[in-house]
Amino acid sequence: MRVLVLGGDGFCGWPTSLHLSAQGHDVHIVDNLLRRKIDVELEVSSLTPISSLSERVKAWKGISGSDIKVSQIDIAEQYDALLDLITAYRPDAIIHFAEIRAAPYSMKSSRHKRLTVNHNISATNNVLAAIVESGQDIHLVHLGTMGVYGYSNHGATIPEGYLKVNVDLQDGTSINQEILHPAHPGSIYHTTKTMDQLLFYFYNKNDGLRITDLHQGIVWGTQTRETRRDERLINRFDYDGDYGTVLNRFLLQAALEYPLTVHGSGGQTRAFIHIQDTVRCLELAVSNPPSNGTRVQIFNQVAETHRVRDLATMISSKTGVEVAYIENPRREAAENDLKVENQCLQDLGLNPTKLADALLEEIVEISRHYRHRCDLSKIPCVSRWVAPRETTIDPVVVPLSRKRA
Amino acid sequence: MRVLVLGGDGFCGWPTSLHLSAQGHDVHIVDNLLRRKIDVELEVSSLTPISSLSERVKAWKGISGSDIKVSQIDIAEQYDALLDLITAYRPDAIIHFAEIRAAPYSMKSSRHKRLTVNHNISATNNVLAAIVESGQDIHLVHLGTMGVYGYSNHGATIPEGYLKVNVDLQDGTSINQEILHPAHPGSIYHTTKTMDQLLFYFYNKNDGLRITDLHQGIVWGTQTRETRRDERLINRFDYDGDYGTVLNRFLLQAALEYPLTVHGSGGQTRAFIHIQDTVRCLELAVSNPPSNGTRVQIFNQVAETHRVRDLATMISSKTGVEVAYIENPRREAAENDLKVENQCLQDLGLNPTKLADALLEEIVEISRHYRHRCDLSKIPCVSRWVAPRETTIDPVVVPLSRKRA
Repeated sequence: MRVLVLGGDGFCGWPTSLHLSAQGHDVHIVDNLLRRKIDVELEVSSLTPISSLSERVKAWKGISGSDIKVSQIDIAEQYDALLDLITAYRPDAIIHFAEIRAAPYSMKSSRHKRLTVNHNISATNNVLAAIVESGQDIHLVHLGTMGVYGYSNHGATIPEGYLKVNVDLQDGTSINQEILHPAHPGSIYHTTKTMDQLLFYFYNKNDGLRITDLHQGIVWGTQTRETRRDERLINRFDYDGDYGTVLNRFLLQAALEYPLTVHGSGGQTRAFIHIQDTVRCLELAVSNPPSNGTRVQIFNQVAETHRVRDLATMISSKTGVEVAYIENPRREAAENDLKVENQCLQDLGLNPTKLADALLEEIVEISRHYRHRCDLSKIPCVSRWVAPRETTIDPVVVPLSRKRA
Repeated sequence: MRVLVLGGDGFCGWPTSLHLSAQGHDVHIVDNLLRRKIDVELEVSSLTPISSLSERVKAWKGISGSDIKVSQIDIAEQYDALLDLITAYRPDAIIHFAEIRAAPYSMKSSRHKRLTVNHNISATNNVLAAIVESGQDIHLVHLGTMGVYGYSNHGATIPEGYLKVNVDLQDGTSINQEILHPAHPGSIYHTTKTMDQLLFYFYNKNDGLRITDLHQGIVWGTQTRETRRDERLINRFDYDGDYGTVLNRFLLQAALEYPLTVHGSGGQTRAFIHIQDTVRCLELAVSNPPSNGTRVQIFNQVAETHRVRDLATMISSKTGVEVAYIENPRREAAENDLKVENQCLQDLGLNPTKLADALLEEIVEISRHYRHRCDLSKIPCVSRWVAPRETTIDPVVVPLSRKRA
């Protein structure tokens, strides 16, 4: 298949591009290199020494014999260039990773909120409008996030995208139907992914676009089979307060013998998936497009869930590094449940890597090996969800009631 | 109160600004004059001879003695100017009309889809981010649309924003809760209003912003008590295929003795409200802000619902002008039900004008009086919801089931 990978230079995009190429697909990367420019803005670097995108694809050609073409296009700003590329390349599938990620980054300031909203929404809408304008029947695969759901509602398992509800009517009957799961985003970044869902809903309904949305948990790990083949192919590893996700930060802290910093009580339950499984899921999604005439296909791309403090304890017990509890910058419940359905991708053949099997390997292979490249001052999260305001405003409490069925 | 009216030169914004000023509020208009520029793009004009915004406020000063200040700011593009104005003016409320409207306009082409999405989302997010950054406790009143709901679900009455649902849990219990009504937009324009709702949800939850969202039906009529006081204050009347709404188009067609053009079978039920009631609703919303710590307040701003063909028949019987059935450019069900709850604004004091009372007055006062200004060639709707594509794609059918409670 011909696959256009938007955001193909990023943490998920790069190893996905290599994996698809290794599987025999024809891969064309589009990237505006914004993620690398944000490293410049934040004055941080990947812990791992990532090569330039040109060097990456050249190294891959040398090792695998396969070509990956690259177009430097900002899909949020350069619609005509995107449309021209789609028209000329005629992809079977487009994978859309080209959004600004990271909840803390999106909450740093008003400017970051606006950049995240404007870029992400324009990017997604441009891709959709371009597919329609091209007149081609292209399968769009989008990287969503578990963050669209919020957390488990009174212990309910989060379904894959659609929630079964009963609505009582005035005439005494009730309607039983599936609706798009209500959105409960926890940051501006997550809000943009919930807004994307509405664009997908509309273009699917109006134009019949075939779309798969993958609601991914927090990715951990760094390398995949392909990125491991040569250091010039190495994947990025973010450990800073904005882009470093909780588990990778713990792993690096352990390697540095730096206390594992847990925000608040660490009672937040999160969903996780290893980067090796991410690339496998993307290949499964590309190979299993929804039929024409069906609704948006939504999969939860998740291997397991853990409470943050349990993760810290697990790593502490394996490494002897202590745990430090610090203030939580996020506005969220101190403790939450998260039960997630994740059968769809397993039914397609995914057999996920579990944390218990690969944590130590990751610490040795990446965190210890590259710890000399770490700037300790960049580890704390400095973004705050709420700044001091003139008036004290109470948080909004959503009323809920529970009854026996 | 000090009220900042974003989009205060538009069809709803201008009469609202006058009404608030007449009620003794201090009004400051922000507008980028985009609606007038779109008239230039489409080579159409308001049927009524609208004055420039400067002439309008000057005339109002002469007639009422009240000042309305004006700032030409594009709130989607000039965030800093917006923030500076909020900081200096310290409004009690901001009314946000500053979005590109009209479903057909948003569906004209890829460019129009992108313009509508980029402008509307950026505008809304900029206002929200600016309120947070200002640190002020400002009530935001937004003009939403009934189009966020789609149509009645198996005869259910559409509630005011929040839907009560039951969710069955695995353990045999069920949860009874109110969720934001599922979004079923019918155009790109309507999709942007559903996306706005998610931004409101997040900023309300995270920052405690006080927000009222008014889901308005189709506005008809032209003049209000204030715009009628001098021809220089006259409100705009759109009759073209993009911006002319169904009822105003019928009224003009009747005045011209031109057949009343009904799209499809005319079985689409729509919700209506008179412009005089719109301005009253806005004043009620501004005067009744939600308390701190409460969720987004949503009102349905609707007076009555009618099937399009019944409207045509009503006007035909009053005027003797025939009805012509033409192809429907929209992708929508041929017949639909629409029952709408609209108690909230009535509880606050709204006593809506009904169609049967004011239709003929509107025909005489506006459509007959200004019919010499009409360009007949502009009446047909030329936007198409779906263009021909390479492959035939089936529309997406959403499965529903119904059961006895």
